[in-house]
Amino acid sequence: MFALEEYTKRLENVKKRMVEEGVDVLLISNPSNMYYLTNYSAWSFYVHQIMVITLEDAQPIWIGRQMDASGVAKTTWLDEHHIIAYPDYFVQSKERHPIDFVANILTEIGQSARTIGVEMDVHYFTALCYERLKHGLPNATFKDTSSLVNMVRLIKSNQEIKYMKRAGEIVERAMRAAYDCVQIGVRENEVAAAIYLAQIQGTPEFGGDYTSIVPMLPTNENTSSPHLTWTDRKYKNGDFLTIEIAGAYKRYHAPMARTMSIGNAPNEVKELSKVVEEGIEATLDFIKPGVKACDVERVWSKAIGKYGHRKSSRLGYSVGLSFPPDWGEHTVSFRPGDETILKPNMTFHLMPGIWYSDYGVEITETVRITTDGVELLTNFPRNLYEKPVLSILPDEHTS
Amino acid sequence: MFALEEYTKRLENVKKRMVEEGVDVLLISNPSNMYYLTNYSAWSFYVHQIMVITLEDAQPIWIGRQMDASGVAKTTWLDEHHIIAYPDYFVQSKERHPIDFVANILTEIGQSARTIGVEMDVHYFTALCYERLKHGLPNATFKDTSSLVNMVRLIKSNQEIKYMKRAGEIVERAMRAAYDCVQIGVRENEVAAAIYLAQIQGTPEFGGDYTSIVPMLPTNENTSSPHLTWTDRKYKNGDFLTIEIAGAYKRYHAPMARTMSIGNAPNEVKELSKVVEEGIEATLDFIKPGVKACDVERVWSKAIGKYGHRKSSRLGYSVGLSFPPDWGEHTVSFRPGDETILKPNMTFHLMPGIWYSDYGVEITETVRITTDGVELLTNFPRNLYEKPVLSILPDEHTS
Repeated sequence: MFALEEYTKRLENVKKRMVEEGVDVLLISNPSNMYYLTNYSAWSFYVHQIMVITLEDAQPIWIGRQMDASGVAKTTWLDEHHIIAYPDYFVQSKERHPIDFVANILTEIGQSARTIGVEMDVHYFTALCYERLKHGLPNATFKDTSSLVNMVRLIKSNQEIKYMKRAGEIVERAMRAAYDCVQIGVRENEVAAAIYLAQIQGTPEFGGDYTSIVPMLPTNENTSSPHLTWTDRKYKNGDFLTIEIAGAYKRYHAPMARTMSIGNAPNEVKELSKVVEEGIEATLDFIKPGVKACDVERVWSKAIGKYGHRKSSRLGYSVGLSFPPDWGEHTVSFRPGDETILKPNMTFHLMPGIWYSDYGVEITETVRITTDGVELLTNFPRNLYEKPVLSILPDEHTS
Repeated sequence: MFALEEYTKRLENVKKRMVEEGVDVLLISNPSNMYYLTNYSAWSFYVHQIMVITLEDAQPIWIGRQMDASGVAKTTWLDEHHIIAYPDYFVQSKERHPIDFVANILTEIGQSARTIGVEMDVHYFTALCYERLKHGLPNATFKDTSSLVNMVRLIKSNQEIKYMKRAGEIVERAMRAAYDCVQIGVRENEVAAAIYLAQIQGTPEFGGDYTSIVPMLPTNENTSSPHLTWTDRKYKNGDFLTIEIAGAYKRYHAPMARTMSIGNAPNEVKELSKVVEEGIEATLDFIKPGVKACDVERVWSKAIGKYGHRKSSRLGYSVGLSFPPDWGEHTVSFRPGDETILKPNMTFHLMPGIWYSDYGVEITETVRITTDGVELLTNFPRNLYEKPVLSILPDEHTS
């Protein structure tokens, strides 16, 4: 848990933005934003829960399911008056909806006719949540504040950076575990298992947390599609794969991707890897406070463009604290049109993956903007790793 | 992948329900429903994607992000005419929304003025998705079909049952790994790591898949709140904990929870465990085809009520195929008011967890309704496990 002063400061920053946006009441559905403001981290977001911020109140109010209320009391700084539970018969019911209960609470505390910010495009704030809310609060005015708290999270505190560096140490171990495990005759799921073990064991000094996206490790032609996970197929000589994973410490993430092969990689993969490596170098040389997010992408595009390559997807995105289903923060992206000026202690997943129709290469870094440049939060060789093939393999004969 | 005939049958069943509900077009946002109909399982649901079912078309249409399209082509039975990709600049943008793209496609294929079913209360169909859809299709009529496909999934095929039994084998191994790992001086995260390792390694015959909820293993007073995960605190003599996990095979789940202690458990935990065990026996004796879901809960309540205990939350829910953030199917629950009549090959997580303000007990089973009763999908001792304390523990001196 962070010091109470840090939570108070975060809440103040959120309230400042609420005033700027003309919002009296803010309803938070995004578990990352709830955690950011209160330390609440339970896996209870699969049922509806809402955190209410009003300009007047010094604490957020959590409204959620009965069986989760004691977890809020035990793990956050909220007092008992700011923890309100709805009965279990609201859960996944056809007759009742938890947001009806939330609307009643807002009415009881005199907030029914205010301007209310809602996270319109956040998973967990469903279309039906909004319909029920409008129905229950006919005199309220609603405003989309999907990224209001996310924008407050953009610049990290020193303690947050420390957490992300720990996450960086964890992902180094997890990637090493994957490299060590991949071999002819080994099943894809065994590599995923080795990654999980390293991610959650963490280091002797600190334990690991679950990551908001599972390991993604498509092989061969499936590397053209980065979000495929794994099967129980056995690796064969000449297979190549991309491995995109993260380390997590207390919900803070450091993602990383690498590309490897068993024995020699195909020529196109080798060549593309070199282009990506060179592009990363050029991009890292450029990144510093004061430059724009879109210009980072421009430098990258130029670096790979001279070899005839082109990446049609964004080059990266803000990263840090998160809950499933995404480890991105949904704020700033390295892509044309994003004019955000980079500032110290912003953190990004620099994501120079290139996916063609039958193969892909991913080599990525999690980076922090420093006072005069950029710092890597992980330390792991970037080159394509062509793993030597063992000459004696008991499994090979049985596969 | 299931046989094409099974997918065709599933799609037919969905269309039948569409006709019953007066829906011409069905938009699917729930990744479990997408997978059920097409085998698409990539972790791409963190950006907006929609599957379109029309009564006329023999295949669903997938509409999603450019970089994911080749994964759809490579892992599903959809042909290239049924895979439509939106450019990356729609992703998490303030200017553009993927659902605008979807609305345009629906207009192009002549479906803009139809009755369209949308999954109003599904994570991934956000409030903004619905607003953009209404804006883009002003002549359409919308209907809430949140559980239309889920209801089709309620009765499992034999192959689905086989998958769930495999998941059951995996969760047995994972629970055994947890029991073996918990000990004085061991950190909570190391137990979580042992669970993950067993979950993903699976068995020598088949590999494990990730589960839709992470391991939940609250200790001592935190057992009052079932959805807390883990920390890196070290276990001490006398600690007690609940462990709620699942095994997963090709996205099919078998959840299971158990309660254990290091050395002697507190008396109230021992006593409550016995009550829960007896309640489970009574409940299992009762469950069979033809009885109502609400009556299952009634039998349970009576069994524990005679000892003065009461459970305020539902006793269980339909389970099977799922994606994060939940392994429940959001259809049938064992609770008052649910009049669903049980039928063979329905599958449930029988969830007799009881949570009081300072402790809780969870002992659960995944069950299948058979032709004349009920079958457990896992085989694991149900009693409270009081793990003997080792006399020589090197870690103990350093903790």
